[in-house]
Amino acid sequence: MKKCLKGPLQGIRILDLTQVMSGPIATMLLADQGAEVIKVELPCGESMRRFGKDNHGVSDTFLSSNRGKRSLSINLKTQKGLEIVKQLAKTSDVFIQNFRPGTIERLGLGENTVRNLKPDIIYVSINGVGESGPYAKLRTYDPVIQALSGMTDIQKDRQSNQPHMVRIVIADKITALTSAQAISTALFCRERNGMGQHVKIAMLDAMVAFLWPEGMSSLSYVGEERDPSVGQLGLDLVYKTADRFITAGAVTDAEWVGLCRALNRTDLIEDDRFCSPGDRTRNVRARREITSKEIRTWPSAALLERLRAHDVPCAPVLTRSELLEDPQILHNKLLVIHDDPLLGLVRQPRPAAQFDQTPVTPTNTAPVLGADNNTLLSELGYGAAEIANFTTNGIIREVS
Amino acid sequence: MKKCLKGPLQGIRILDLTQVMSGPIATMLLADQGAEVIKVELPCGESMRRFGKDNHGVSDTFLSSNRGKRSLSINLKTQKGLEIVKQLAKTSDVFIQNFRPGTIERLGLGENTVRNLKPDIIYVSINGVGESGPYAKLRTYDPVIQALSGMTDIQKDRQSNQPHMVRIVIADKITALTSAQAISTALFCRERNGMGQHVKIAMLDAMVAFLWPEGMSSLSYVGEERDPSVGQLGLDLVYKTADRFITAGAVTDAEWVGLCRALNRTDLIEDDRFCSPGDRTRNVRARREITSKEIRTWPSAALLERLRAHDVPCAPVLTRSELLEDPQILHNKLLVIHDDPLLGLVRQPRPAAQFDQTPVTPTNTAPVLGADNNTLLSELGYGAAEIANFTTNGIIREVS
Repeated sequence: MKKCLKGPLQGIRILDLTQVMSGPIATMLLADQGAEVIKVELPCGESMRRFGKDNHGVSDTFLSSNRGKRSLSINLKTQKGLEIVKQLAKTSDVFIQNFRPGTIERLGLGENTVRNLKPDIIYVSINGVGESGPYAKLRTYDPVIQALSGMTDIQKDRQSNQPHMVRIVIADKITALTSAQAISTALFCRERNGMGQHVKIAMLDAMVAFLWPEGMSSLSYVGEERDPSVGQLGLDLVYKTADRFITAGAVTDAEWVGLCRALNRTDLIEDDRFCSPGDRTRNVRARREITSKEIRTWPSAALLERLRAHDVPCAPVLTRSELLEDPQILHNKLLVIHDDPLLGLVRQPRPAAQFDQTPVTPTNTAPVLGADNNTLLSELGYGAAEIANFTTNGIIREVS
Repeated sequence: MKKCLKGPLQGIRILDLTQVMSGPIATMLLADQGAEVIKVELPCGESMRRFGKDNHGVSDTFLSSNRGKRSLSINLKTQKGLEIVKQLAKTSDVFIQNFRPGTIERLGLGENTVRNLKPDIIYVSINGVGESGPYAKLRTYDPVIQALSGMTDIQKDRQSNQPHMVRIVIADKITALTSAQAISTALFCRERNGMGQHVKIAMLDAMVAFLWPEGMSSLSYVGEERDPSVGQLGLDLVYKTADRFITAGAVTDAEWVGLCRALNRTDLIEDDRFCSPGDRTRNVRARREITSKEIRTWPSAALLERLRAHDVPCAPVLTRSELLEDPQILHNKLLVIHDDPLLGLVRQPRPAAQFDQTPVTPTNTAPVLGADNNTLLSELGYGAAEIANFTTNGIIREVS
């Protein structure tokens, strides 16, 4: 029964016309799981190639969003260029694009066209706020979705009420995860029931669905809505010790007792203000004042050891550079270094989900622009002379 | 070819022993896509039933993490209780648990046991930092993962360097999406190749993988690492108008020109400090000072209209309560109200990913504790007298 597969998605071919992050990170996850992803780029390459530290046109940000893909750089506005992409569609399982609504049809690769070429293809469209509606034709960047989805409201300053953004492109990346999940589900459904379909994901929808479970759940019971800002989760449990920041939190009674013991403040265990979780929430200010003051007097290493010994959830607050050397990160072999002949030593996280029967050994590198032009065209049956001709005529781009 | 399916995962049965959020939200996404999810709870019910506004033991937070599931409340520490869960495992496609490492084996439902009952089951284990390693046995809450994964470093105050948390349980929810994606992939792989497997996900791994693409990508080229805090994405593009907060951002030259025109400041188009994207980044301070000052003089409605007319990405910054009435949210039919006979009117977001051939009509409600005890036991072949007996003996819990 056991087969030798290079990942659970081996045998799946994805024709990927997406750019920036929402689409590319979705297909990267699928490439990490063994799918063949053909990234179709314009002859100038997509914009993210120029974002971050450059290395042969593979910026570190592009690299981290396009691991393990093949690259075809092709002029879709030429008849031949379009024809080549259509030939690839015929052998693809998934077609994915994240242009503004209407654009893919103008390019001549709308769903009907592609489905005629490959009737059971999974056709995936990612857009900003939806296919239609008041904002559908507008430009959408990640901050726009953060503003519309309630993310900035969640992060607002509690004193001044000034809304704040999260400093990652969270809407793009939540959409990427949501899309990759939907694609895998659609692939399962096609495998079982034989049908392809059109899967549509709007970034706005993905973010609201993501934030809802605790970020907006107080709006769930109609007529009984409460202001979601009141009593929301997400206390900022960051404390300063004598030498560095740590996090520590005591939710249950046992954890509270553990915290008091770790801090040598067993007197607080009997303190009326802090007896139950309810008491501790009511007197959160006094409690945090006392614990902050105590924590500040301890060296972090000694305190973390004491907290752990008392089973209190805690951790050092790591900078991203420190994280590279954290003993648990090292133990997990989470960050893998790969020696790429052209790009040099490349560090990337391995995929988080590990499959024991189809273990994944992802390619930790991304292609230079047009890296696979020749191979892909040969696979389609074009000869060397024809391919050279395509280059001369500006249909494909010579690899630099 | 087209079949009438209630979602792309119809026919999949998931035996769900998870609690809190990382597991429950993963299986909720799969339930939203048509899978049958049997939530196995202790007779007291899981802790999230008591978190948030109560309604027959279905708090709003529990509801929003457990839509569309069936509930079995059962005492796993009785021999009969364990046997019943094992009987359910025999007919399940997925078994999922998120206990601390070692616990599920002590409960008598480790992988080997379950795989003997159902050889091709997808067995899923979610944990905090990994199965083993220095932190593996410690308690892990979301803030611990935020501290270890670099999330708090990304959010640190740029003046004081004080790290901050994101105010959602982001590590739990990223893990949920990552896990749901991995389960769908594993289901595809089993459907095609016939093999079940053990899928393992650590919250820490999921968060680092999520944050990396632009949050840590400057650590990708070994030996060429740069401090990820420098030049990172995520400007806080929130501006105050005369009446409310909005977001607006100009990245390309065309967008910058549009912004200048919308603000009636065409003089800035020729300003040497702001000619190219590079110039505008170098002089970000001066630029933001000028634009903030101008934006503050406009009423938001008029300004947003002008910005849109000039194709400048922009949006009002919505509170979560305002979001309910936003025209695009309404147009998308994103929030669905369901009339539950017991719980009343329930508002939930529909799933973000829409499948045109297997459209999903999710159950927008969650079960009261033990709601499906009788049906599930009848399906296993137990008679009414036996079931009554189980209740009397404390093996299952009577529905309240």
